[in-house]
This record gives sequence, structure tokens and C-alpha cells, in this order.
Amino acid sequence: MTIYEESLKFHEEKKGKIEVVSRVEVKNSMDLSLAYTPGVAQPCLEIQKDPSKSYIYTRRWNTIAVISDGTAVLGLGDIGALSSLPVMEGKAVLFKSFGDVDAFPIVINSKDVDELVETIVRISPSFGGINLEDISAPRCFEIEKRLKEKLDIPVFHDDQHGTAVVVLSGLINALKIVKKKMEDLKIVINGAGAAGVAIAKLLLSSGAKNIILCDRKGAIYKGRENMDSSKAELANITNPENIKGLLSDVIKEADVFIGVSVAGALTEDMVKTMNKDSIIFAMANPTPEIFPEDAKKAGARIVGTGRSDFPNQINNVLAFPGIFRGALDVRASAINEEMKIAAAMAIAESIPDSELCEDNIIPKAFNLDVQKKVAQAVKEAAIKSKVARI
Amino acid sequence: MTIYEESLKFHEEKKGKIEVVSRVEVKNSMDLSLAYTPGVAQPCLEIQKDPSKSYIYTRRWNTIAVISDGTAVLGLGDIGALSSLPVMEGKAVLFKSFGDVDAFPIVINSKDVDELVETIVRISPSFGGINLEDISAPRCFEIEKRLKEKLDIPVFHDDQHGTAVVVLSGLINALKIVKKKMEDLKIVINGAGAAGVAIAKLLLSSGAKNIILCDRKGAIYKGRENMDSSKAELANITNPENIKGLLSDVIKEADVFIGVSVAGALTEDMVKTMNKDSIIFAMANPTPEIFPEDAKKAGARIVGTGRSDFPNQINNVLAFPGIFRGALDVRASAINEEMKIAAAMAIAESIPDSELCEDNIIPKAFNLDVQKKVAQAVKEAAIKSKVARI
Repeated sequence: MTIYEESLKFHEEKKGKIEVVSRVEVKNSMDLSLAYTPGVAQPCLEIQKDPSKSYIYTRRWNTIAVISDGTAVLGLGDIGALSSLPVMEGKAVLFKSFGDVDAFPIVINSKDVDELVETIVRISPSFGGINLEDISAPRCFEIEKRLKEKLDIPVFHDDQHGTAVVVLSGLINALKIVKKKMEDLKIVINGAGAAGVAIAKLLLSSGAKNIILCDRKGAIYKGRENMDSSKAELANITNPENIKGLLSDVIKEADVFIGVSVAGALTEDMVKTMNKDSIIFAMANPTPEIFPEDAKKAGARIVGTGRSDFPNQINNVLAFPGIFRGALDVRASAINEEMKIAAAMAIAESIPDSELCEDNIIPKAFNLDVQKKVAQAVKEAAIKSKVARI
Repeated sequence: MTIYEESLKFHEEKKGKIEVVSRVEVKNSMDLSLAYTPGVAQPCLEIQKDPSKSYIYTRRWNTIAVISDGTAVLGLGDIGALSSLPVMEGKAVLFKSFGDVDAFPIVINSKDVDELVETIVRISPSFGGINLEDISAPRCFEIEKRLKEKLDIPVFHDDQHGTAVVVLSGLINALKIVKKKMEDLKIVINGAGAAGVAIAKLLLSSGAKNIILCDRKGAIYKGRENMDSSKAELANITNPENIKGLLSDVIKEADVFIGVSVAGALTEDMVKTMNKDSIIFAMANPTPEIFPEDAKKAGARIVGTGRSDFPNQINNVLAFPGIFRGALDVRASAINEEMKIAAAMAIAESIPDSELCEDNIIPKAFNLDVQKKVAQAVKEAAIKSKVARI
């Protein structure tokens, strides 16, 4: 049986991967009077007087929505809201298992940016945070931006920021090994979708100076024709030398390759043109831009992928549960750059220097200690950057 | 400490009355591959091919939304969406405790009928049913009607239909005692909000011929000025003799008084003008339209209230968990009149004739056997009326 057949059987047998349970017993009239009428009127009135009390008297303090419109699901593309529900339930499982966050899947039957934004804003009082998932670029940027403006709860598009945080954590550790500095690197990111854009921005926030993004047409540069607004914005903040050309051109003398693109996009010949001690994160799933063995043969020193069967798995699950755990713990109004960088540092630092090596720059995904460290770091960063509300 | 103070303390200590938990373990890469990527792609694709598979591969089959806009919360009125969240969580607790239904509270920050309808339609793919709650009349009628047209999952406004079902069940048993027939009764319903309207309609579906609704201005009759559309519709199907006047007028020679109005609305003098063996359901909360002792003194034979400290508590919790349990079990596309009447019959029949008496016409709210009987009856009615889909 393939993993796909097994998973189908597993899903059928499980009858749902999540469940809503009661935390209170209702066995008699007194129980009912406390949990429901007439007693429940009192917490309602307290929340009416002070909306922040919703974090005290309801589960909101620990509850987030995992929201998708089903337009960019895994490698499957635009399969629609309903069809994406198994993924969103899976995400909710990971939030609970790794961050003790109550996550509920909401799939929205609309592809219109305005409709998605207004729908999420309207249902937001039920939640202490919003995790956006599998929404296609460039719509996801606009949706996230507008939600952040309208809501005072954290809004986080995991495909962007979760990936960016783990990439940054891997890069921090890789740089310790190759003894290079962030500001000196030439970094090429292949793929200018949700993840590529977010990685570029987070690396810029972390000191990188020379990042070149490539899409199918090659390098993104100022003045390139027919770019959408997110690419035009990127052209202004990346590629300082305004280099043009295909990946095979821009990869020359790069120190770092970050692939969020397609299988086989990076060839051995391209790797050979990179600088010494090159770092390659080839995250296309399930088949990476280049296999680790081939990359190393061509001269790469450190290679990471999205897969668990190779060293250095770049897996979002290292980031999002702890990030939301930390944010919820201090009732943060947002998840900002400081919190994301703190999360990346915490993931990186969870590997002690003594254990750091080419094949061990990123901790294992199932290490709950890492999640706790991430949560703690995010919490502290939220307090320091003044988005914590308790 | 009052029940309100106790409830506040209880809510603070509980840190939320519901919780989203995982039904699967994620301890290693294999677990992750089954519950999440890459395996989860397969159930997604199956649902894309056949949307009904969403009931097989996700928790949708057992999950409903408890939805409110916070416009008619308990006796508190329009306190807003966020403030209503403790009530919706409480409702979710009751759904789980009495019907093993996964219910998730969604409070919507809008009072606009169009916006509420479109928001609920958009998020509906996450759910197998919609329970509307505490939405003010007459908006609730329009919202429910339009949702029923647009959705192929059950939509049920509990304040209307849950109440109506339990009232009908109590009336069925009361009639056995007083040996009167539904079609011969003169029934006065005081209160023409959500519950009053739904009770009138369900009693009409159950054979009642002569129902007069009163609101604050007195009887609702054909041609009365300044009625909203729901009252105008009611005027056409109730009050066959087109009687005018205040409650004190229309109550004369009535067999049944059903109060969904305000404390003290029914006086002893009014009861004295009712027919022999009169039946009174005084459901205003927490203080009924008339206290049972006073009603009996004035000649009433059977009295029910909304309170647990008097006999014959008319409590929705007898109905809604079993109704949704039955509907979900057969993947019903709607909750129709047949299913509601079946639920009322099942509740009524759960009291054997040998135990039936003036002070025991309605079973206790905490009787899980009743819920099972309701679920079974609703399931059978769904199959018979052809809304069952499995």
C-alpha cells in the first residue's frame, strides 16, 4: 500500500482527526445553571463592559482558526475550500499536539479577496488568533495585510512566515559552520510565491543585504515588465545590483540557494558555479530542487530539504505551534518581525554548538523541547516589542 | 454568593468550557505522513471528486456551528457578538454532553441580514449542520429561510424550533390527561418573537386549528396596522375568527396559554376566565408569566415553566442535541417539520402512561435515554421524509 492509500484508510477509520469536547460536566440543574442559564449571563455582561474579558471567561484565549480558501493546497493547487478540509484538520492536530493550541478549521467558499477578508473579520470574535493556510499568492499578501490592519489578534500566514522562520533558523546555524556573515552573503531564492517572498523579507530583517529572487522568468529586478504588485515591491528591496537573467546566471558566486519552487530546478552545473562552502535549502516537495547527494557532489557544503528522510528537514512544524503558543500566552495583538526572528533564533539555539555539524543544523520536528523554547522566546519578544497585552 | 457570582468564578476557573482536541497521535514522521503531508493529499483529492466524501474523511459528519450575532441573548437583548460567546460555548457543551455532537461557537460581528447569510454560507463547508442561536426576531426568520434555501445541510434556529418541539411534547402529554384533542383547542400564545412564531407553526402542523398570538399590542389579526412581515404572515394562518383585543380579552375560554413573553403577563383573573382543565406553559425566564401555585389556585390544571425548580420544565435541551444527533447520523440535508414532530412525540412518549400526571408531563432534562429516543425518532423521520442521505 502506498502512503496515499494508507492515509485514505487512516482517514476513513479515524472519522475525523479533531474533536470538540466539553471541559465541564453537566449532570444536574446546578451544573446547567453555572455553565449555561441563568449564570452564564454574568460573564456575558462582564465581556460587554470589557471585551478583553473574553480571554478570561471563554476559550478564546487558547483558540485559533486555521483558515483556507483551498486555492494553493499542498502541491495540489486550487482544489477548493471543502477539498482542503483534511489538510486544515491535520494542521489543527499539529497545533494541538505541538503547541497545546485549540485550532479549528474554517474553510471559506470564496476566492474573492474582499469576501475572504470581510468573512474572516466577521467571525474573528470567536478566536484569539488567525492562521491562514494554503491561500494562493499574490492574493495571500493582500489578505494578510488587510486582516492585520483590521484585527487586533495575531494573523499569521504559515506558508509564508512559518517557512521563513525555519529557513532563517537553518541559515543561522549553517553560517556558524561555514563562518560567513549574513550581511556578506549573496542569497538566491528560487520561487517568488508566498514562501519565497516571506523568506526574502525575513532575511532582510535579519541583516541580509544581497538577495535575488527568481521566478519562472528569472531574476526579479526593478523595471521588469508585467510584475504583480508583490513582485514590484520585492524588486525595490532586493537585487541591489539589479541583476537580470535566469537562475543559471544569477546563481553564479551565490553563497546560499533557497528553493521553494519545483523538482529539479537546481542542477549540479549550477551548484558548481556557486561560492565555496555553499548552502542549499531545496524545499520543493516531495522532490527537491536537487537531491542532497547530487548537491554535495557538485560542491555544496550544507544541504537541507523539506523531507524527513534526509538530514536537515526544514519543517514549519518547528515554528508555528510554538509561535502561536507564545503569542496566545501573552495575548499578543500581532505576530511581528521581532517575534519571528526570536522564534528562528530559539530553533537555531536548540542545537548546542557541540552537536552542530553539516548534517545537523535544524532540530528534529518531533522535539517538544524546541516548541517550548520557541514559545518562550516569542513571548519575550512580544513583551519587548510591546504587542503583549498581559 | 449568587448564582451569577458563582458562575463568573466558575467561568474564570474553567478557562473555557470547550476544547478542540486531536483524535490522532503525531509522534513520528510516519504519523505525520498519514495525518498530514504527503498522505493527506489523497482524501483531499477524493473529496474534490465527490464532495460527499467530506463526511467520510473529515470530522464534518459530526460537527455543527453554533452561530449567533448576539442580538437576542438570553434575557439580555442585543449585547453584541463577542459578549454572547459564553452562551454559545455553553450551548456547545450541551450538544456534546447530551448528543455527542461536536459543536463549535461562531459569533459573527454583523447585524445585517445579508452579511450574516453570506458569512454563514461561506464558512458552511466546515460543518455538517448550522444551529442558529439568540438572533433577534424578525431577522431570524429571514436568515433561517435564506440559509435553508442556499445550504444542503440542516439549519435549525433553536430558540424557535427547539422550544416549539418541547412545547408540543408537553402539550401532547397534557392533552392525554385532560382528554382534549388538539383540533378542538383554543390556544393563546403570548409573545410573537422567535419562539412564539415557531410554536404557532409547529402546533398548526400538528393539528391545532385555533391559535391566537398576542404581542404587546394584543391579538395579531388580519388587517392590523404596522405589522412586520412575519406577523402579517401569522395573521393569515392563525386567529381564524379574527379576534381583536388584549390578552385579557382573548384568553377568555382558552384551553391553553403558552407564554414566551415577560414576567407576570398572565394574572389569576385571566386564568379564571379560561376553560376548565386549562393548560398553562409560562416560560418567561427567570420569572414566569404566572407562578404555578397562583395559576393552580386560579383554576389551571396543568402548569409548566422554564424553570428546573418547578414541575414540568420546558427545556430545549430535551430536543436540540437529539435532533442534531439524528440528523447527522443520516446526513440529513435539512431538519423538517416531520423530524420536529417526531422529536416531540419521542419526548412525550418517554413518559409511560402509568407515570403520566399533572406534575409529570415532560421528562427531566438530564435523562440521556430521552435524547437517544429523540435521535432515533428524528433519524427515522428523516429517512421517511427523504432528507436522509445515507
